[in-house]
Amino acid sequence: MKLGTCLYNNQTYVCIVGDDGVLIPALEPAFDQPAWRDMLTLIGSQIDLHAPLQQAIPAMRVPVEEIALLAPIPRPRKNVMCLGLNYLEHAEETANQIGRTGKAPQYPIVFTKCPTSVTGPDAEVPFDPDTCSQLDWEAELGVVLGTGGKKISRDNALSHVFGYTVINDLSARDIQLNHKQYFLGKSLDGGCPMGPYIVTADEIADPQNLAIACRVNGVTKQASSTRNMIFDIASIIEWLSRGMTLEAGDVIATGTPSGVGFVREPPEYLRPGDVVECEVESVGLLRNHIAANRSSAR
Amino acid sequence: MKLGTCLYNNQTYVCIVGDDGVLIPALEPAFDQPAWRDMLTLIGSQIDLHAPLQQAIPAMRVPVEEIALLAPIPRPRKNVMCLGLNYLEHAEETANQIGRTGKAPQYPIVFTKCPTSVTGPDAEVPFDPDTCSQLDWEAELGVVLGTGGKKISRDNALSHVFGYTVINDLSARDIQLNHKQYFLGKSLDGGCPMGPYIVTADEIADPQNLAIACRVNGVTKQASSTRNMIFDIASIIEWLSRGMTLEAGDVIATGTPSGVGFVREPPEYLRPGDVVECEVESVGLLRNHIAANRSSAR
Repeated sequence: MKLGTCLYNNQTYVCIVGDDGVLIPALEPAFDQPAWRDMLTLIGSQIDLHAPLQQAIPAMRVPVEEIALLAPIPRPRKNVMCLGLNYLEHAEETANQIGRTGKAPQYPIVFTKCPTSVTGPDAEVPFDPDTCSQLDWEAELGVVLGTGGKKISRDNALSHVFGYTVINDLSARDIQLNHKQYFLGKSLDGGCPMGPYIVTADEIADPQNLAIACRVNGVTKQASSTRNMIFDIASIIEWLSRGMTLEAGDVIATGTPSGVGFVREPPEYLRPGDVVECEVESVGLLRNHIAANRSSAR
Repeated sequence: MKLGTCLYNNQTYVCIVGDDGVLIPALEPAFDQPAWRDMLTLIGSQIDLHAPLQQAIPAMRVPVEEIALLAPIPRPRKNVMCLGLNYLEHAEETANQIGRTGKAPQYPIVFTKCPTSVTGPDAEVPFDPDTCSQLDWEAELGVVLGTGGKKISRDNALSHVFGYTVINDLSARDIQLNHKQYFLGKSLDGGCPMGPYIVTADEIADPQNLAIACRVNGVTKQASSTRNMIFDIASIIEWLSRGMTLEAGDVIATGTPSGVGFVREPPEYLRPGDVVECEVESVGLLRNHIAANRSSAR
């Protein structure tokens, strides 16, 4: 099932995304209304999503032209947790660029993006050269937890996953590298496009075997597979939960493959008017526009 | 004014802390009830805190023995933002320990602690040697924003401050140093003691001239002044808000002075049963106990 958050008649709703339109359960008497109030409530409710859906799907109510998808979780309850250097070729290209020897990290590298950076599919990403002149792309598979826990074992970890989405871990390289810790350069307003929706875990047979790509203005910049992660999703959940209680609704960005802009010769960065597309097989295509000028970024 | 969050009759309330007891505005007809529902609502309401208080204060209702203070913001809406190496002597002691030359960072170093790590005054901090055997103290002045904004100028920054609190930026050094980025080692459950309350900004004439100290089992480990910050509070707010919209209720931990445990010869770490006290002049004393054994940590 594809679950999104949409704007319809100036209100925000959780919706079930179909080919030609969306079903908005909050407008359907057949559904458990409190559970469908917003995505975080739905995830926390642990209801069986499929039971009432069998008969409702054919009555798909709202044509896709009448809604706009937002980020599936427009406002996470904590920062998005992100893996750094989690694909070997990206770890190597980054090490080469900063003059070190490339090797796989021995332990997961985890940083965060603040909730205010989250933005939706097709949203315009602000461009403000006074703050950042080196805005870079990073296509990532996003994992949304359905149940939390502590000391979750690797064997059991995938049962905690509610679903998957696509994240563009946009990175202000000038800020990121100046400030040593990644947080500030990863947390610009609009710096965390997410979407277009969450695909529930039951629809993804093997999350470690999905093609992942990034295109800028139609030119492929990143193309890999989630099988190339150094720490796979189950290991990431195990590591994160060793000392920290994870919660339903937590969002994890699992790292980006090689092909980012700042390691290229010459370096490439996103410019006003660019269209950046991140795509994960079976999960979705997340497209965003870089604002044409700084005034539109405010 | 000292504003806390307390547990009273098994319910959580915002309270005004006095010498012998607390006033719970939610139980007082004279107060604007919706605004006093919880601390984040109060901060966001922008109400004049002092107007109804003039007559209410003498009627201080609840003796201090009948309540327990929690963290003033028990669940922040995003990760706590923390400054790294923001006192020169601490930057130097850390650099020496990891074999580098100590110098002041040229730009603020910012990382985060997750909301689940927040705990209150007198709370027991879990001790789990399987996860962390190098738990270290870091006394810090905490800043709570009253109004958000973007591109806040240094000159105007302190007008965005709602108040101040004390934060113990507890750090799992073994995790922190293994994982390169600080987030995981800073986000253990119970790893962010905060409190005992928020002192509103009007009561702190100069936040850059406050004694700051940490004691473990009564022995002074850190003793400095907030005047020794490399980036002062106004500069921090200016830096953070350059590309990221700050919000009412945001919590910033402004860095720790020298005297932490892991740089000592031999290194010192917190042990089961230890009592750690962080104190900032005019802001308060935050005392926590390290759990006596791991079973009590669960």
